[in-house]
Amino acid sequence: MKTKVAIVGYGNIGKYALQALEAAPDMECVGIVRSSADRCTPEYLAGTPELSGYKVVTDIAGLGQVDVAILSTPSRSVGENAGKYLLMGISTVDSFDIHGGIVDLRNSLNPIACKGGAVSIISAGWDPGTDSVIRALVEGMAPSGTTYTNFGPGRSMGHSVAAASKSGVVKALSMTVPVGKGVHRREVFVELDGSADFSAVEKAIKEDPYFINDETVVKQVPSVDEIDTHMHGVKLERFGVSGRTEGQRMEFNMRINNPALTGQVLVMAARAAMRQAPGCYTMVEVPVIDFLPGNREENIKKLV
Amino acid sequence: MKTKVAIVGYGNIGKYALQALEAAPDMECVGIVRSSADRCTPEYLAGTPELSGYKVVTDIAGLGQVDVAILSTPSRSVGENAGKYLLMGISTVDSFDIHGGIVDLRNSLNPIACKGGAVSIISAGWDPGTDSVIRALVEGMAPSGTTYTNFGPGRSMGHSVAAASKSGVVKALSMTVPVGKGVHRREVFVELDGSADFSAVEKAIKEDPYFINDETVVKQVPSVDEIDTHMHGVKLERFGVSGRTEGQRMEFNMRINNPALTGQVLVMAARAAMRQAPGCYTMVEVPVIDFLPGNREENIKKLV
Repeated sequence: MKTKVAIVGYGNIGKYALQALEAAPDMECVGIVRSSADRCTPEYLAGTPELSGYKVVTDIAGLGQVDVAILSTPSRSVGENAGKYLLMGISTVDSFDIHGGIVDLRNSLNPIACKGGAVSIISAGWDPGTDSVIRALVEGMAPSGTTYTNFGPGRSMGHSVAAASKSGVVKALSMTVPVGKGVHRREVFVELDGSADFSAVEKAIKEDPYFINDETVVKQVPSVDEIDTHMHGVKLERFGVSGRTEGQRMEFNMRINNPALTGQVLVMAARAAMRQAPGCYTMVEVPVIDFLPGNREENIKKLV
Repeated sequence: MKTKVAIVGYGNIGKYALQALEAAPDMECVGIVRSSADRCTPEYLAGTPELSGYKVVTDIAGLGQVDVAILSTPSRSVGENAGKYLLMGISTVDSFDIHGGIVDLRNSLNPIACKGGAVSIISAGWDPGTDSVIRALVEGMAPSGTTYTNFGPGRSMGHSVAAASKSGVVKALSMTVPVGKGVHRREVFVELDGSADFSAVEKAIKEDPYFINDETVVKQVPSVDEIDTHMHGVKLERFGVSGRTEGQRMEFNMRINNPALTGQVLVMAARAAMRQAPGCYTMVEVPVIDFLPGNREENIKKLV
């Protein structure tokens, strides 16, 4: 029996999560939940032909039985949405990406998940997410040492959404540029509406918690679409000591389509949610094998 | 209260496991178990001054309470040793490295571990082991695709031990040389005793299950010590599809002292053994965070 999954929010991540669900042998999408009725009308949905054949509703109750809800909504609304579904007994997964808020979100959702008899897997993207799993693993392999996570160059979705939320901004693209050894510059390209004041926008972006700790350059452009990209990457480096032996070195590199990987990781997490005891988890708290479809022994035979 | 750990077998891996235990804030070595009384005498132990201050015994009962036994004995004796300790209620960890035998070992030890109320974490080295965790993770991230694990160049301990076990061989070094895209050549250097027949040794090595699937070259040398090395490495590559998006690429590289990393991973596994329900596990079945010392929330804050 396939796991019944709803997608909540149908922006960039929701689209790719649907593709990953459609490709998964063990899951099915039972519908899409959108925030407003305007986005569920046949006229509006004509713009997303890939949704034909799917129910699109504003209330998840309209989808019948749902095992897991994939929350592809902005990070800041994850807590509220997750809490609501967990209390209904529906497990949730999200790619909440505000690093400083992860422990608090986990601790606030954990009792709600337990109460609802459901599972929440939070921050299931690639960073936080799969990178976190690798950071934890290499930390264990060389416990005394240093890890550098170097992002990009690439579009940061969370940062782009945060920049786009500022008053007067029509579209925004936040590029993450690695300076080296874990230091990054944020290059934010903004398309403004006619009445916007660039310096007010610039100030609002630079003071946002997403940007406040990094060197941030804001540039006004006539069209964000012309320079946009979905490609992103990471170089995660660990230099450390195993036991008393110096010079151990590990490195994880990837070059990926960012929302495609995020959508895929959300689907991995949705699968794993079906295999955990009620509660709230980050990806490092879940056995890696639980993220994979198929028979456990076959997977061990193939991958271990 | 620190976890009480015994080291069973004190060869190359046992030595490095002791160093990793000594460096671990949450564990203590309560002694060493050796196979023969000859190796526990003060005269013999004069050659291993790092063991002064540790009990060295032939029977683990002589060490008092033991929570976990690190089995740093050859892979082929792991099953028997683990079974014995698990029935005594002592958890075990090992770096069993015969890939084709892992599922059988897991399934044979699982009921014994449950009966003894203990935990066994098997194949906890770097491959199988930490590489397995990464292989499983990247498989999930791009479910349709290909993974190549390229080893070396470096000394394979399991293969070296297997080669050294052949009649007439005094010492052996098996180098793993990557040919590319997951294909390897084994270069085996053997130091023979005077009466040994090289072609019989060569045949015995080539027919061993450790070597039978790879191109294997056996060379006789006057001294293995002169060409030996502990450095090893891996390049693990994944090319695949996330959802419907092609071109996703992930790569894990490391260059490490092989027994030092293996010793460290065994200590990670010993820690994790204290945190699982009774049974037998491979590393992919254990949450990565359980391998780390310290407070769970602090680790999430730092690493996720």
